[in-house]
Amino acid sequence: MKGNLLIAHGGGPTPVINASLYGVITEALRHPEQIGKVFGAFHGIEGVLKNQLFDLTSEPSDQIELLLQTPSSIIGSCRHKVTESEYPLILENLRKNNIRYFIYNGGNDSMDTCHKISKLAEQCSYELQVVGIPKTIDNDLGYTDNCPGYGSAARFIANNTRDLWMEAQALPLYVNIYETMGRNAGWLTAAASLAEYNGKPCAQLIYLPEVKLNIDRFLSDVDNQLHKGREILIVVSEGLVDSDGASLMEETEIIDEFGHRLPGGVGNTLCKYISKNLKVRARAEKHGFLGRCSAILQFKADRDEAVDVGKQAVRYLMQGKNGIMVTIERCESPDGRFAYCLGEVALEKVANYERFFPTEWITPSQNGVTEAFRTYARPLIGEPFPDYTVLKSFIG
Amino acid sequence: MKGNLLIAHGGGPTPVINASLYGVITEALRHPEQIGKVFGAFHGIEGVLKNQLFDLTSEPSDQIELLLQTPSSIIGSCRHKVTESEYPLILENLRKNNIRYFIYNGGNDSMDTCHKISKLAEQCSYELQVVGIPKTIDNDLGYTDNCPGYGSAARFIANNTRDLWMEAQALPLYVNIYETMGRNAGWLTAAASLAEYNGKPCAQLIYLPEVKLNIDRFLSDVDNQLHKGREILIVVSEGLVDSDGASLMEETEIIDEFGHRLPGGVGNTLCKYISKNLKVRARAEKHGFLGRCSAILQFKADRDEAVDVGKQAVRYLMQGKNGIMVTIERCESPDGRFAYCLGEVALEKVANYERFFPTEWITPSQNGVTEAFRTYARPLIGEPFPDYTVLKSFIG
Repeated sequence: MKGNLLIAHGGGPTPVINASLYGVITEALRHPEQIGKVFGAFHGIEGVLKNQLFDLTSEPSDQIELLLQTPSSIIGSCRHKVTESEYPLILENLRKNNIRYFIYNGGNDSMDTCHKISKLAEQCSYELQVVGIPKTIDNDLGYTDNCPGYGSAARFIANNTRDLWMEAQALPLYVNIYETMGRNAGWLTAAASLAEYNGKPCAQLIYLPEVKLNIDRFLSDVDNQLHKGREILIVVSEGLVDSDGASLMEETEIIDEFGHRLPGGVGNTLCKYISKNLKVRARAEKHGFLGRCSAILQFKADRDEAVDVGKQAVRYLMQGKNGIMVTIERCESPDGRFAYCLGEVALEKVANYERFFPTEWITPSQNGVTEAFRTYARPLIGEPFPDYTVLKSFIG
Repeated sequence: MKGNLLIAHGGGPTPVINASLYGVITEALRHPEQIGKVFGAFHGIEGVLKNQLFDLTSEPSDQIELLLQTPSSIIGSCRHKVTESEYPLILENLRKNNIRYFIYNGGNDSMDTCHKISKLAEQCSYELQVVGIPKTIDNDLGYTDNCPGYGSAARFIANNTRDLWMEAQALPLYVNIYETMGRNAGWLTAAASLAEYNGKPCAQLIYLPEVKLNIDRFLSDVDNQLHKGREILIVVSEGLVDSDGASLMEETEIIDEFGHRLPGGVGNTLCKYISKNLKVRARAEKHGFLGRCSAILQFKADRDEAVDVGKQAVRYLMQGKNGIMVTIERCESPDGRFAYCLGEVALEKVANYERFFPTEWITPSQNGVTEAFRTYARPLIGEPFPDYTVLKSFIG
């Protein structure tokens, strides 16, 4: 049957979420016999609840092309957790706008919302097909080789790690800590291991949130490194917890609108431990939100993948599919290089599931990641670019 | 007379300091009748004191070429303040290595060191010519239109400002504060004003360190903005002080090796004021050292300038000049576009002088900068790149 298509974005933005939107719009325009208008929900599911849907097909094509290079979510996003009582309103507004195809681009929370909308439509005999698009810089969705957004965000981390190492070598006045996003899953933090200079890793120590941090062991790791030289760069996840499972985030004095204190940086907490116990200066860097909204290092392979999953979502809808998320399956191309094909997984499987960093890819010393991870990650992230000078007489 | 040339770097790294080094080496190689070897001092003046000088002319040419795209200081740098008693040792080591040409690439502190070495050599009748190269992301050297390093670092800020604004629009959950480098002079912070989206500035409020911040007025500014909409981005200098001249940096619990507490972020302090007084969530981003070591947004015009001042320093030495720093003078090219020619200024004039942001380029409301600044800055920084999508139906 002919109907309109609605796309909504959920959760944090990425450098390529709009590239998937581009894929959805351009593919949808190829099916005028089935798809009427393509609507975008303003600020995700909040826009659906408020009936704030805008016609994306009325936008000029040059602006649609620019979606490929535009970071963050151009149609807005939200962190709204839909309550049971709100689902009927969602359905009502979909019906009102004759939405028969619904695409939700997001992470595991969004896939849960997606799944529930699909079930409800079925129960109410409202003809609706729902397909999810994977999106998260955290790379923690299950049943997919990787998530669009991860490659570019991880590339930002790998490049920053190398640049911070160039700084650390030039002016070795501190123990340097670089705190990355990736609160529960270590995929982003691990990307730091792709940064190399002069054939050696730029980050000497890397700590993922999957391993509880023993502070004594951490201090001993740092002390050992300091004995090798005064230049040192440590990369940590913002979600590290100590041996007792307690957060290493500082409780700041910043109060949110509910009267709660907001947490501060793990990097700063670890700096305190270092300066107090090892009597050396320590300094933490944290790129914060720039890690997910910066388009400076948007990676072409990541963007291409984002476009592809967007197009595939529409193709699946046209094939009559429903209640699934598009997945990426890694395969080898005939020339031995990285390639992927697209697949699908039931929404109920992927909803609310978090894929953690594999334990076997963490080194036995628990302060680094193995070559197996780097082999996995290189096609997604690329090498830090461009080449930097190595002066043999200075560091040889 | 024939002698060796020594180059040293002082102070914080920049994305193009090595491009000046490239200029020095390549120009020096064109004067074999006067210049023997080109030495680099390992970690600036510390390397001269320790007699750690390395022959740069022995490095392979492909590595010298890569200097153009390599950030931070490849020969190291330092923050060492030379004491009176150390100057004789500097002269001794210059003599030992038959250094007759000395180039120091740095900011106003470095120019002071440079000046003193020049004077001492004269007093001791040691034939030595000294020329300084301007370098600072802070853009606060006097007698020059701008300083190599500023353009790229400022470009990083302008692009980040736009990307943070894209994030703020997509997920308007916080009052967003972006804290930039530039402790005493506001040139870097002001660069945020070059970020525009949909014809409007991305940063609604910009606070420079040249103006003491009245907290009540600041809160009133923020409150006014919040009445216009919930998306808000504020850019502040890390060096802001309050009406009484007291630092707005937090006193953290991080202790340095001298037992002093290290200061924390101005952004965090202002978040506290906002959340406490205006009852809204506020969040601060601070790119920290990435602002000076990241090469991601190295700007070609900045790099070309850095190469030129490096070459010019050697040319001035070959002309017998001494005790000067290379300067950049802005002029208009015949087609009305930005161009510059190179000049010189006596080291004693430029030493220890800080060029602050002009008061007349700060808006009367003291929370922004004028178009005159942007006209000055655009050729140095460029526009944020690339273009981003504007969807009229969503934000029109």
